[in-house]
Order: sequence, then C-alpha cells, then structure tokens
Amino acid sequence: MSEMEKYVAGLLDRARQASRALAIAPTAKKNGALTKAAARIEAQSAKLLAANAEDVKAAQAAGIPAAMVERLTLNAKRVKEMADGLRQVVALGDPVGEVLADWTRPNGLRIEKIRVPIGVILMIYEARPNVTADAAALCLKSGNAAILRGGKESLRSNMAIQSVMAEALAEAGLSSDCAQMVNTPDRAVMDLLLRAEGKIDLAIPRGGEGLIRAVMEKARIPVIKHYKGVCHSYVDASADLDLAEKVCLNAKLQRPSVCNAMETLLVNAKVAKEFLPRIAAKLKAAGCELRGDERSRRIVPAMNPATEEDWSTEYNALILSIRVVDSLEEAIEHIARYGSQHSDAILTRDESAGREFAARVDSAAVFINTSTRFNDGAQFGFGAEIGISTDKLHARGPMALPELTTYKYIVHGNGQVRD
Amino acid sequence: MSEMEKYVAGLLDRARQASRALAIAPTAKKNGALTKAAARIEAQSAKLLAANAEDVKAAQAAGIPAAMVERLTLNAKRVKEMADGLRQVVALGDPVGEVLADWTRPNGLRIEKIRVPIGVILMIYEARPNVTADAAALCLKSGNAAILRGGKESLRSNMAIQSVMAEALAEAGLSSDCAQMVNTPDRAVMDLLLRAEGKIDLAIPRGGEGLIRAVMEKARIPVIKHYKGVCHSYVDASADLDLAEKVCLNAKLQRPSVCNAMETLLVNAKVAKEFLPRIAAKLKAAGCELRGDERSRRIVPAMNPATEEDWSTEYNALILSIRVVDSLEEAIEHIARYGSQHSDAILTRDESAGREFAARVDSAAVFINTSTRFNDGAQFGFGAEIGISTDKLHARGPMALPELTTYKYIVHGNGQVRD
Repeated sequence: MSEMEKYVAGLLDRARQASRALAIAPTAKKNGALTKAAARIEAQSAKLLAANAEDVKAAQAAGIPAAMVERLTLNAKRVKEMADGLRQVVALGDPVGEVLADWTRPNGLRIEKIRVPIGVILMIYEARPNVTADAAALCLKSGNAAILRGGKESLRSNMAIQSVMAEALAEAGLSSDCAQMVNTPDRAVMDLLLRAEGKIDLAIPRGGEGLIRAVMEKARIPVIKHYKGVCHSYVDASADLDLAEKVCLNAKLQRPSVCNAMETLLVNAKVAKEFLPRIAAKLKAAGCELRGDERSRRIVPAMNPATEEDWSTEYNALILSIRVVDSLEEAIEHIARYGSQHSDAILTRDESAGREFAARVDSAAVFINTSTRFNDGAQFGFGAEIGISTDKLHARGPMALPELTTYKYIVHGNGQVRD
Repeated sequence: MSEMEKYVAGLLDRARQASRALAIAPTAKKNGALTKAAARIEAQSAKLLAANAEDVKAAQAAGIPAAMVERLTLNAKRVKEMADGLRQVVALGDPVGEVLADWTRPNGLRIEKIRVPIGVILMIYEARPNVTADAAALCLKSGNAAILRGGKESLRSNMAIQSVMAEALAEAGLSSDCAQMVNTPDRAVMDLLLRAEGKIDLAIPRGGEGLIRAVMEKARIPVIKHYKGVCHSYVDASADLDLAEKVCLNAKLQRPSVCNAMETLLVNAKVAKEFLPRIAAKLKAAGCELRGDERSRRIVPAMNPATEEDWSTEYNALILSIRVVDSLEEAIEHIARYGSQHSDAILTRDESAGREFAARVDSAAVFINTSTRFNDGAQFGFGAEIGISTDKLHARGPMALPELTTYKYIVHGNGQVRD
C-alpha cells in the first residue's frame, strides 16, 4: 500500500466510524456543533482571513482569472455570512427519523419506513471556501459524515475552516471526523476516492461541466450531478405578452451566469411579430446578444444568426438564442432535442397548453407563467440547497436535507415465520 | 458506425420515443395492453413452448447445469402463471401522476411535486423467460420503456414472449417499442448499452454476484443492484428462546437458496448454552451443515470450525455459520463488519435492545422478533417486486412500482419574477 493509499484508507475508515455515531446522534447534539462552529468561525475570523490571503496571493501569482479569484476571496462580511449560514442550518428541521410510512400486514407484522442518513458523502467542489462550511453543515444536520474536496486554489482556506469546525464538533461531543477535508490537491487521491465502492455512499460534485465529466469518467460510486442548464421559455400563441415579457426578461437578465437562467427563447409564430421586436429591444438595451433562427431574424434583422450548436449551449452569459415555432408541439420537440432537463417555462393563458407542456417536458422543474430562475432550494422553501440535480434517480431538482437521506424498513413481529 | 452500433442506436432511439408517449399514457391504456398480453400469452402458449423447447434442447446439448435448465424450462403451468402475473400488475395502482407534495409559497407560486416515470429502463437478467414478461409489465405499468436483455440460453423463448407482448401493445394503441428485447447475446451490445449515458436512465441487473459485478465494471449509466444477502439473526440475552428457535429455523430452512435467508446466527453468551444445543439438533436434523466459532463449538462440539471467510459468505444453501457474542454491541459490530446491508434480525424481549439494534444496524430491512425471509415485495404488501436493492440511493429493499418512478416539479405562477 502506497502512502497515498494509506492516507485514503484512513480517511475512509474514520469517515465510516464517524458516520455510524453521527447517524444516531440526537438533533440537539448536531445543532450544538453547528452553533458552536458558527461562533468559532466568527471568533477566529482573523485566522481564516490570513489563510485565505495566502490562497489569494498564490492564485494571483499563478495568473488565475479574476472571476475565480473573486469567488476564492474571503472578507469579514463573507466570514460572517458563513457563520450565519451554519445558524440557518440549525433552524432547519432534522430529516432523520421521520416516519415515511407505517403499516401493519394481515399476519400482524408492523412495517415502518424510516428516514435515515445515507452514510458517507464525498463533496467535490471548486475554489469557493464558503462551500466547505455550507456542505459540511448540511451533511452534518442530515447525519452524514462528509469528506470534503475543494478546489486546490482554496486548500489553505478550506483547511482552516475545517479545523475550526472540527474543534466545534469535538466540543459538542461529536467526532471531528464527521467533516474531514482532503489535505492534498493530488488528483490521484481523488481517483482513489471515486473508486471507493462501499466506502463512500454518494459523491456530489458541484462545479462546471468539465469537473462533472471528469468525476463521471472515474466514478465507480454513486454520483448525483448537475450537468448543465439549457433552460427554455416558450411564449405560446395565447400568452399574455406583458406577463411574458416581464418573465422572460427576468429569466434571462436577473442573473445570467447561473444554471437556471434562460438560454433559449421559443416564440409561437402567431405572436412572434408582436412579441419579438419589443423583447429584443429590451434585451439589447440590457446588453444581451441575440442569436436568432431565420424566421426570428426576418422579424428582427439585427440579430446574429444562431447555429445548430447554439441550441444546446449553456451560455451562462448575456447571450440568448431565439427561435420561432409553429406550435406547442414544436416547442416541446425542440426542448426534448436540445434541452438539459433542468428548468423550462411556458407562458400561456391556455390552461390545457400549460398542462400539456408540464406533462410532456421531461425536466426537473417545469414553470407555467413564471421564471425559470425559481428552480432553487431557497425559492422552493427548502431553506437550504446542496445543489440542483439534473439526474432522475434519488433526487431531482433542488436538493436539500431530505435529499441527503435514504430510508430503512423496520419490521416488528412477535414470532411470525414465512410459510 | 458499425452494424452493431447502428443496431444499438436504433434500439435506444425507439425506446426513447416510446417512453415519451408511454409517460403520458392513461392507466386504462396500459392496463389494456397488459390484459391483452395475458390473453395472447395463453392463446399462443404452443408457440412459446415450441421456442422454449429449442432453448432447452440447445442448453442440454451445451451441458448447462440441470438447475439452470430447470429455471429455463417453460411448461403449460408456467405459461399460465406468466399470464396471471400480467393480470396481477393490472390490478396494482398506477403510481404515475401521484401528487407527492403541493404547496404555495408566500409570493403565490404553487409548487406541485408529481410522480413521473423514469424513462428508459434496461433490465438485465439470467436465463429465466418468465422475467421477460414480468419486467416488461412492471416497466409498462410504471410508464417506462423497457429494454430487455435476458440470458443467452433463453433468447428464443424471450423473443417469442416479447413478440406476443408487442402484438398486445400495438393492439392497445401503444408502441411495440415500449418493451424491446435485445436480439443478440453478443456481449459487445451489452457494453454499448451500459455506456449509453443519457439514453438509458436506469439499469437493473438481476442475477448472481458475477453478473452484477460485470455490469458495475462496465456501467456509465445509473444502476440499482443487489449484490448479496449475508443475513444475520441475533438471539439476545433476553430472547424468548421458543420464539427465537421458530424464527431462526424459518430464516435458515424455509428457502435456503434465496437472498433473504439467514447465513449467520449470532447468539448471546448468556443463552448460548441453552439455545445452541437445541437449535443445532433441529438444524442438523434438517440436513443443515453448521460452522461454529470456538465458543459455539465448545457448546456443540459436532460443528465444523468456521473460517474468517465464512462470516462474509452468502451460502444460498443448507449451511449456517454460528458465533457466540458477549453483547448486543458485539452483534452490531459483527454485522457492520461482515454483513451485506440486506436483512438482519434480532430476537429479544427487551424493547430497548430491539430499538438499538434497529437504529444501528445499517441494513435495508431490520427485523425484530421475526424472520429475515419477510424482506420481500409481496410480503411487504407491495403486490409486485422487480428486485431487492442493497443500494442506498433512490431505492432500498424491495422495489415495486413506485421505485420505478421519479418526480418532477410543476410550478404554477401568474407572472412572478425573482428579485
């Protein structure tokens, strides 16, 4: 066994041991750890900022892009937000122990279906130190031991945050191994972790498509992922055009860099001549580049031509592809062909069109007369979000605490045997 | 593109197309197809038996083991059972469309969480032709298109069953591509299918550990599996020994070849001297080989010695490993170390011991004072079972129709936008 294999084996064994105790830890103990961690993060703000300053300096020296350095950078306000984030998790209900079903069979067997933690969760993310505290807290509250593996640029910050949280865990009477940080950016460690079948119960990668694809290529453990958000808004023939304009502008402009922002606007031919010029003007005024198909460019000639590739591109930027369609059917087919099963909206006053769109569009969330930007744990009222799943298995859409759990059956008998 | 790649691409495209229509098919239509399939299977029994006779002849000529030939063989009674199985699926409730949650946010957005089909499911199984009808029916009722890949020895039988079902699907107004059979035993086709990311939503392999491991090695698509059942019964210090004897004999003897049969008996030292001789005598009388640790062999010297390997072995046969433990704690640790997270039982009159065992043993189903043999869809009252999952993600324990579904969110608004 190489030194690296030994390191990973130790990490995994400690995580499993910690997860077994954590799985049956009372809510008060978990909340105690989170409350203490919040206080310690605030109290040790200077230590965290010093570690972060080193990361930032190294990143700048390495010529890391400014946007990435920005996400990497902590300041007093962000440290405070990190602590407040932990307190918000304290306020959330504990999903563990919830009775999902309880029934009695004719032979007298009573069967309970109980929500339990998943076990050991590997969180993989990019250079955003706040995710360390956030992910550790959500795993802890849901009774799972976390193995955290953040972007290499943020390693010093992450180690500092983890060490503060470890103190709080110990103070609250929980194992500090409930939230371990992978202490090396070595990719070989990641490869070993992703092949730790039976040792890690779930991996959740958070980041760009490149990171996700790299994880999927290596993983032999279950992964819940979020590939990309190629989100559509379809303006139906019967749409209230004022409402449609307001919603589409919001879907594109309110925060174009995120996964649930609109990337393609589909407009029914019956309203295209009225709708396209007015929304195009507002989008252009907001600095948005428009890429249209031939029919939309006949109506708004100032648009750039859209290529076949545009229809399946997640711009994450102020760019919008636009297409005129002849029917609801054509809109649904376009989304089936090019969409990413993330968030898609219809704008319509026709209830049956809304129903049909919602039934036939195979996305995590379908929106009727509202913005795709609402596909979000906080907006759904979940109070926390560890990611948005574009998978269909186990969890779909916003993932909060219940999505970090599984269930077990407990069968109570008094000597029943099978015939 | 090779001929084989073209064949697989066609199979996948047809499955996706079929799944989209099937996902919104009304219950009556799906039930109609199943009812017609049952009638056609009975009416065309001679055709099915003729195809099966060829499979059996070839299998015998190839020197396939007798037990496998037995599972492969159809007769009039088994054909009738296959048809009755389809009728049982008709009688089950349709899980699709169930409203799992429905709430309204402060901004007026109404969010529905609706049960929907998963999409395209790949069923992989061994040479048991009845699984073809069974799996196709469960996928159909839950709104999923099935791609069926049975053992090569049963290919003629499977093709005949599939063709009869395809006629029924068409007659009922559904696409015959709702249940496609892979028409070649070529392993390269299987490899292509297991790498069809985004084209197949879920693979469910059913069979021995070798099959499952081969699937896991190749798969880049989600798999729900069942590795093995190393099931324990722990006789606590406070157990009712008459009840414990009855339950343990049932867990071991009633059907030793299946996954939920007991493989290891753990007995608390306080009752071992009384309990072990009496149960050992009955097990031996039933032809069961006993393999004990040193302490149990001091009490019942006629046992064979258990090796370290025995504790993690799924015998699927009339063999039982036996160990004396000093405490509930030691029993729980033994199960954590050697168990397969399938089905484990405690026999006790001490309620707190039962609660602790149920909370700490991390298995799909935990049994208190009853037999592990009850871990089964029919016994749980699910009315159908497509397998028992030892995974923790998406589905755990017996998998029935609801476990073949996922969910989507439908968000109803009237122009809400995000601030």
